[in-house]
Amino acid sequence: MTLLNLSNQIALGIDVGGTSTKFGLVNHRGEILTKGSIKTTGHATIEDFIDALYTTINPSIQKFCGNNNLAGIGMGAPNGNYYTGRVEYAPNLPWKGNLELAQLMSQKFGVTCKVTNDANAAALGEMMFGAARGMKDFIMITLGTGVGSGIVSNGQIIYGHDGFAGELGHTIVKPNGRKHWSTGSEGCLESYASATGIAITAKKMRAEFPNSMLNDYPEEEINSRTTHECAKKGDPTAIEVFRYTGQKLGEAMANFVMFSSPEAILLFGGVIQAGDFLLKPTKLYMERNLLPIFRNKVKLVLSELEEADSAILGASVLVWEK
Amino acid sequence: MTLLNLSNQIALGIDVGGTSTKFGLVNHRGEILTKGSIKTTGHATIEDFIDALYTTINPSIQKFCGNNNLAGIGMGAPNGNYYTGRVEYAPNLPWKGNLELAQLMSQKFGVTCKVTNDANAAALGEMMFGAARGMKDFIMITLGTGVGSGIVSNGQIIYGHDGFAGELGHTIVKPNGRKHWSTGSEGCLESYASATGIAITAKKMRAEFPNSMLNDYPEEEINSRTTHECAKKGDPTAIEVFRYTGQKLGEAMANFVMFSSPEAILLFGGVIQAGDFLLKPTKLYMERNLLPIFRNKVKLVLSELEEADSAILGASVLVWEK
Repeated sequence: MTLLNLSNQIALGIDVGGTSTKFGLVNHRGEILTKGSIKTTGHATIEDFIDALYTTINPSIQKFCGNNNLAGIGMGAPNGNYYTGRVEYAPNLPWKGNLELAQLMSQKFGVTCKVTNDANAAALGEMMFGAARGMKDFIMITLGTGVGSGIVSNGQIIYGHDGFAGELGHTIVKPNGRKHWSTGSEGCLESYASATGIAITAKKMRAEFPNSMLNDYPEEEINSRTTHECAKKGDPTAIEVFRYTGQKLGEAMANFVMFSSPEAILLFGGVIQAGDFLLKPTKLYMERNLLPIFRNKVKLVLSELEEADSAILGASVLVWEK
Repeated sequence: MTLLNLSNQIALGIDVGGTSTKFGLVNHRGEILTKGSIKTTGHATIEDFIDALYTTINPSIQKFCGNNNLAGIGMGAPNGNYYTGRVEYAPNLPWKGNLELAQLMSQKFGVTCKVTNDANAAALGEMMFGAARGMKDFIMITLGTGVGSGIVSNGQIIYGHDGFAGELGHTIVKPNGRKHWSTGSEGCLESYASATGIAITAKKMRAEFPNSMLNDYPEEEINSRTTHECAKKGDPTAIEVFRYTGQKLGEAMANFVMFSSPEAILLFGGVIQAGDFLLKPTKLYMERNLLPIFRNKVKLVLSELEEADSAILGASVLVWEK
């Protein structure tokens, strides 16, 4: 990647999430000078949302850099498209249809705004400032409520022909498998390896094994965190929940490796709190499904960035790209 | 891709196959001035093979360009590695272990030699001179005895960290599925969508359906071609062989699309002679397994290059890369 050399310039990095939107003013070395957040919800239109963002952020811009030294805005958003600057039909955002996010932001703030999806932003952040520093080929997988991904090959984010590349959470790992709650597809990775998927697996398995500690919780408290609690206490059912999840994730990752042969796969997001309960089976099933030439080469790496900062930092990198 | 501008220079493109090795002298516009082939087998060592290549090709070099205008050599070979110039443990070649192909060729011919695998060479040929002209994002899938692939993103071949990216034939499409005759992996794409895989499917299905025309052939004649013959005559079993193959191929292709979002998938190789018997179900199952944002966007394209010339042309492109 070729970067602009603007050492006294500041980038505004913004991470638009389903519930809250975080922002930070970031210098070219990845130091966050100030940060904050507003609620994503509660704004009737995208224009209202951008007005609220401006009202909140503008005082910081005046204090930390002034309009003259604001180099630009980078935004990560669900379904954000790098090529068009639009957010296209994001199921998790309150505004429907095709949102001209980059254009509206540029008009309001008076500087160029670039947009990408949240997982690509996180991958950029790791490449510039985190666990993927110096890597030219890696895959970032975010294991949160959903499963997102950002793919870097030859030192560049793979955006694909239309800007939508890297939807690895929606690749099918088990044909005719579990039906996805939102897309309806059967057997995709997100149905198993997201926090949502893990909760489904845990609920199924505790019904099968009445002695499991998982049965000590009410239905609404069964999630990745409580399953991890039970696994730590030695509950075989909870351990099996993560083994099964790791099997599906590892099998999927083997296919990803045979596609782009990355130096590392970076894992990120709340689900990785499960640690070795998840990571050991993931690695086992990945290696088992690889051709011999790929075995024992790919590093499994956990994100080095604060989860709260990663997407802001990554979004800010968009500003420095030529 | 940045190309050298050497309009009077000639590249030697070589395609090393399991049984024969084809070569051509190619100008920068993709015109083959002369071509020929030698047997790959029957040479005790890789050095003997290279001696035989030199003896056969050198008279053409002297006649068509002379040593001074030979810009270099590009080679496509099974398991050929672009980064190292080696052929590493290719199961289909007669010489074992790690072959220093680029280095030995350079020494013998006195010019630089670059190596890549055969599917990447074919993808380069299509990008420069064939059906992928002008495309920056596409996937080439070769359906022959095996299933190979070459992936182009951002206008560049994806080689990956170690040069082995793009082994899509070995991605798992059916966990715990058909055991691969050579790698032992279970349920990989090559086990179903290669000519070898189609023959296995046809033999299984004709045993299930005694009335199938496929039963008119002796066992050793059951292959993709004879199955196509029966399909053309309306045999439902033969048609089902290609539908099943297309299902597996289409499901796999959906996953590839959600990885790199290509403009097109190019298909190449003997198996595509089956035409719509294979292509219609392939497209159907690909579309069905895609997220809506990817649907009805990706072109399925058949190679435009003569199969015999494609790999020679593609290999020659390696010479013009800066």
